[in-house]
Amino acid sequence: MTETEEDILDRPVAEEVQADIYDDEGYIRHEFLTMVGAAIADRDVLFLRQHVAKLHESELGHLIEAIQPDQRVALVRLLGDDFDMTALTEVDEAIRMQIVDQMPNEQIAAAIGDLDSDDAVYILEDLDDDDREEILAQLPFTERVRLRRALDYPESSAGRRMQTEFVAVPPFWTVGQTIDYMREEEELPENFTQIFVIDPTFKLLGAVKLDAILRTKRQVKIESIMHETNHPIPAEMDQEEAAQLFEQYDLLSAAVVDENDRLVGVLTIDDVVDVIQEEAEEDLLRLGGVGDEELSDSVAETSRSRVPWLAVNLVTAILAASVISLFEATIEQIVALAVLMPIVAGMGGNAGSQTMTVTVRALATRNLDIHNAVRVVRREAGVGLLNGMIFGVLIGIVAGFWFHDPNIGGIIAAAMLINMMAAAIAGILIPLLLDRIGTDPAVASAVFVTTVTDITGFFSFLGLATWWFM
Amino acid sequence: MTETEEDILDRPVAEEVQADIYDDEGYIRHEFLTMVGAAIADRDVLFLRQHVAKLHESELGHLIEAIQPDQRVALVRLLGDDFDMTALTEVDEAIRMQIVDQMPNEQIAAAIGDLDSDDAVYILEDLDDDDREEILAQLPFTERVRLRRALDYPESSAGRRMQTEFVAVPPFWTVGQTIDYMREEEELPENFTQIFVIDPTFKLLGAVKLDAILRTKRQVKIESIMHETNHPIPAEMDQEEAAQLFEQYDLLSAAVVDENDRLVGVLTIDDVVDVIQEEAEEDLLRLGGVGDEELSDSVAETSRSRVPWLAVNLVTAILAASVISLFEATIEQIVALAVLMPIVAGMGGNAGSQTMTVTVRALATRNLDIHNAVRVVRREAGVGLLNGMIFGVLIGIVAGFWFHDPNIGGIIAAAMLINMMAAAIAGILIPLLLDRIGTDPAVASAVFVTTVTDITGFFSFLGLATWWFM
Repeated sequence: MTETEEDILDRPVAEEVQADIYDDEGYIRHEFLTMVGAAIADRDVLFLRQHVAKLHESELGHLIEAIQPDQRVALVRLLGDDFDMTALTEVDEAIRMQIVDQMPNEQIAAAIGDLDSDDAVYILEDLDDDDREEILAQLPFTERVRLRRALDYPESSAGRRMQTEFVAVPPFWTVGQTIDYMREEEELPENFTQIFVIDPTFKLLGAVKLDAILRTKRQVKIESIMHETNHPIPAEMDQEEAAQLFEQYDLLSAAVVDENDRLVGVLTIDDVVDVIQEEAEEDLLRLGGVGDEELSDSVAETSRSRVPWLAVNLVTAILAASVISLFEATIEQIVALAVLMPIVAGMGGNAGSQTMTVTVRALATRNLDIHNAVRVVRREAGVGLLNGMIFGVLIGIVAGFWFHDPNIGGIIAAAMLINMMAAAIAGILIPLLLDRIGTDPAVASAVFVTTVTDITGFFSFLGLATWWFM
Repeated sequence: MTETEEDILDRPVAEEVQADIYDDEGYIRHEFLTMVGAAIADRDVLFLRQHVAKLHESELGHLIEAIQPDQRVALVRLLGDDFDMTALTEVDEAIRMQIVDQMPNEQIAAAIGDLDSDDAVYILEDLDDDDREEILAQLPFTERVRLRRALDYPESSAGRRMQTEFVAVPPFWTVGQTIDYMREEEELPENFTQIFVIDPTFKLLGAVKLDAILRTKRQVKIESIMHETNHPIPAEMDQEEAAQLFEQYDLLSAAVVDENDRLVGVLTIDDVVDVIQEEAEEDLLRLGGVGDEELSDSVAETSRSRVPWLAVNLVTAILAASVISLFEATIEQIVALAVLMPIVAGMGGNAGSQTMTVTVRALATRNLDIHNAVRVVRREAGVGLLNGMIFGVLIGIVAGFWFHDPNIGGIIAAAMLINMMAAAIAGILIPLLLDRIGTDPAVASAVFVTTVTDITGFFSFLGLATWWFM
């Protein structure tokens, strides 16, 4: 049974929207997408205002990614002031640029004014300098200063990701005064889970979680319930490092301070979750030999980002081939060797990539360090030996029967054992070494490990055969 | 300059501990580890109480992982009641089991009583049934019932990860009454960011964030400031799905409800961050051909978990080898083919794994769906064609000069182009297909993709050569 258009339109929007736009597998419903597409084509502003403008920012982001590329700008134009710019923080960079480039700077400036500062910075940081300056110039003074300060911090720093809106009170206030202040003040941040305690120069003294305020009697002074340490994060700290602090200490938000320990903003867990996702994605893509590419990139962009890795692999493949060419005379005599040699090299490559994957991940999560490295290296060598024996015996039997020659079986068994051991050692030592010299092991390990297993595989198998038969 | 032991001991502990136990790279200081090791050997309980018992749970967990395996149980015994069981939720499963197995059930029961229910469940769920029942039997009635209820939900469900402690009030209470209740009540959860609104049967009516309570005047009724929807999570929902809701809607906590919409617990972002990390790790390890292994696993356990994948690869490698054996006669004539054929297969494998990595990740993050699949397949085919031409020409020139034969150059160029195209198509269609039939594409894609690129690589290169030369 499929729903009719009316069924969908009859269901309540806004709060219940989530059930509306997604199907059971979490993809946007085809019917909804068709209706939005038709509404854009018909310039049906009423429909869009009713059913699209009220979506949650992340749902609107998904929708923008799902509709036809040429309809995206049209949708934003049709929604006008009802378009929630926050949705742009939820889409691919390429799509964000496509939309922002086509919006007049005045409209961006007007929309930016309504955003939280971290979302505003996220959009502004990708613009070219001229556009950014033009937009900033149209903002009110305090807002402009705040955004400029965040934009002055290095890319991917805590200062870039922080929100500059926060609640801060002096230590001598009572809980009652603080609650009264929050009831009166109109310009509070949208959501917050703790308030900060500062001195007159904005130096950070501590923080109080909201539940602590609610548990405490009105006459108690703030300074007597604040924590001193709250893992203040230097604005220059890399966002990945900040994310690790959040994870380790289960933080919901943390104060961001400048070089004089003055409070400049607050980093919140929702931004940190995005950072954690990005970092995990980066490791995965790098291990797969892919750079920072996005699904919306063009053929030329994608090709360009993948060529370097393939070029390096071409060089190492030629290197491995030149090892084979040393044994041309042997292969000419026994063609079976040419048939079997990719098995030895390939199995080594797979075993090496298993060890390497585990090592790279353990390094990324800091589970592998100087204290357990020796034990882990010994374990991997043991695994290499054990699996080498298992698969050496297996392939030895298969090859011996296949080519009716027990000699070939014995030689491939020995070569397999040697290469699995080499794979284990290379799979752990190469990432460890790269990490030690300060290179990201996820980027370069795979090339080196497969080079080792290809060369060792070909050399051990063809070398043993030459020594035995020739 | 290195610090002396006294320098380290002189520094303030507790709040400032973080600066103490880690070095600049985030690893535990060697000096600290040596001192703890010595204290355990000397049974120096005073030192351990002063410098170890006060560590944050995650720091204590790191420390337990870093010390010698035979010292772990000794440390827990020496700390006795001062040992914070929560630290066990931060260590590898194998280490947790090692410690818990050696603790008497009475001590575990006493320690479990102090934990948040989600941490208690995390530890209890891995125990065998007899031990678990014995421990539960020693807990107070209400606690036992709560933990049993959580343990009754399926593994990896929201019900297993939820905390059963929460604050819930009736809708007719005023903000003032609610604040007074929180000031009087002793048994509040440790940290919370919102309170829930329920009817007399515990049916969930809504939620109010703490900042909303603080902004509102005392006489206002709770029902007038609560949100109706707050993305309630069914207790049976898989934790991964729940984590996606948190990410999408930037939740800090969410109500967990049973099949009758009654509030049974609360899921918090700190547990969700762990789930996000686990899921990302799972994808990465599976793509690398590794199962659920941990760094502390033994050689036999590790070998056992890696053998299945290697066995599958052995079969596909033999399959690829049998393709080569079809062309034994050609190779016997032109040994250069044996030298060059791994280059064609290997480059295809790398290009295929690039496409596959991007595809698997896009599927995991739901960025790839029915709406953009056609466009992405077309893009990947374009990238395969472009990169195939680039590397075909390159290897063609190299091989032509290497073996002084432009024919060989032309043949390898054509084979490279064919294989890069095959790699692109296989790299995207295989994960898409596996996803469609309900298999995790991260597990099985790599085998199928390399099988395609090996077979296509050998067949196209040797086949073209046979057709041209023979």
